[in-house]
Amino acid sequence: MFVRKNIEVKDITCGINVEIIMPCNLYGCTLGDEVFIGPFCEIQSGAKIGARTRVQSHAFICSMVEIGEECFVSHGVMFINDKFARGGPAKGNKELWLNTQVGDRVSIGTNATILPVKICSDTVIGAGAVVTKDITEPGTYVGNPARRLK
Amino acid sequence: MFVRKNIEVKDITCGINVEIIMPCNLYGCTLGDEVFIGPFCEIQSGAKIGARTRVQSHAFICSMVEIGEECFVSHGVMFINDKFARGGPAKGNKELWLNTQVGDRVSIGTNATILPVKICSDTVIGAGAVVTKDITEPGTYVGNPARRLK
Amino acid sequence: MFVRKNIEVKDITCGINVEIIMPCNLYGCTLGDEVFIGPFCEIQSGAKIGARTRVQSHAFICSMVEIGEECFVSHGVMFINDKFARGGPAKGNKELWLNTQVGDRVSIGTNATILPVKICSDTVIGAGAVVTKDITEPGTYVGNPARRLK
Repeated sequence: MFVRKNIEVKDITCGINVEIIMPCNLYGCTLGDEVFIGPFCEIQSGAKIGARTRVQSHAFICSMVEIGEECFVSHGVMFINDKFARGGPAKGNKELWLNTQVGDRVSIGTNATILPVKICSDTVIGAGAVVTKDITEPGTYVGNPARRLK
Repeated sequence: MFVRKNIEVKDITCGINVEIIMPCNLYGCTLGDEVFIGPFCEIQSGAKIGARTRVQSHAFICSMVEIGEECFVSHGVMFINDKFARGGPAKGNKELWLNTQVGDRVSIGTNATILPVKICSDTVIGAGAVVTKDITEPGTYVGNPARRLK
Repeated sequence: MFVRKNIEVKDITCGINVEIIMPCNLYGCTLGDEVFIGPFCEIQSGAKIGARTRVQSHAFICSMVEIGEECFVSHGVMFINDKFARGGPAKGNKELWLNTQVGDRVSIGTNATILPVKICSDTVIGAGAVVTKDITEPGTYVGNPARRLK
């Protein structure tokens, strides 16, 4: 016996000329002017996406993530707000959730995974990277865990 | 010329209060009481998910995977039953498929990839980890390949 | 204010007995005889998939990717045509896009990420691998970045 609900586009705050390719599950998030969202994305309540940022297919952007303007979030990029700090999921306990801030003109490569961190403007994150620490200097960061490319 | 089929929720065995966010492709699997399945998931025939386990969006759980109770399978987590042992996919030859057993209260981080292994109860798998070997001691395992975090 | 478009199967060139599990977003691509495409996939315009190749759920195959015959593209595998060569996405500038060529009987493991490279026939790419360089000798390649398994 199960309950089947449907994905939705619900309670979102939108700038002008936003484009969303369905199916997507978007609720309670804020999308700036001319944001593009590809198909098979989930964006949770409270997430904010700046103007002209493009979010490609299969991306997941959770609550407490704020992304700047003119960013590129490639296919399959996923964000995290729960580091399992007590050895398991925070569940409803939002005091354990951590936030992520991404600057402007940040490009995040395909299949990258972003722990709750700050990423400064004009940074490039390589495909498949796992970002575990704050990035405070612009540059290109790759690998698992992500390190600056020399 | 192509045939177009649709995803389905078919032939599943369910406990009470199971919740599924569509679209999902679920067939022939068993879901315990109060299991939650997010959108854009595929769960194949024979897979078993224990009571109160939560499976987040974009996860893929294949045949021959058994997950315990109160686990957390985060967004984009994918399981594997075919190690390409003969240099390519097993195709229909199920003798080449290998099984995975996940204990209780295991938390698997976003975008993690789980080869056919055993994972003991009370383990945490970090985001983006690739688990290639059995995990027999509780702890936190991260990286590609996954190693225990000291 | 947003525009909501739907995924589509549009302008594709197909051999015989192709099977597509919806929902998928496929446009302008070429699929050989007996190709299988699982659900939640996106395949972009110009991509070519050879006969009898199987593409599993959640895969993303971009423009400028050509995959040979009898390949196996596992769940969540994603390709890339833009290396952010100038520190950000190429956007419309296709002169900056790079192509990928995958030979025949290549098996690409779950959640692998493929930068724009050449991969020779009869190669196995491990689950979770990030392929950043051309592969010119058959073998098994794993890790981030992917290296040959001895």
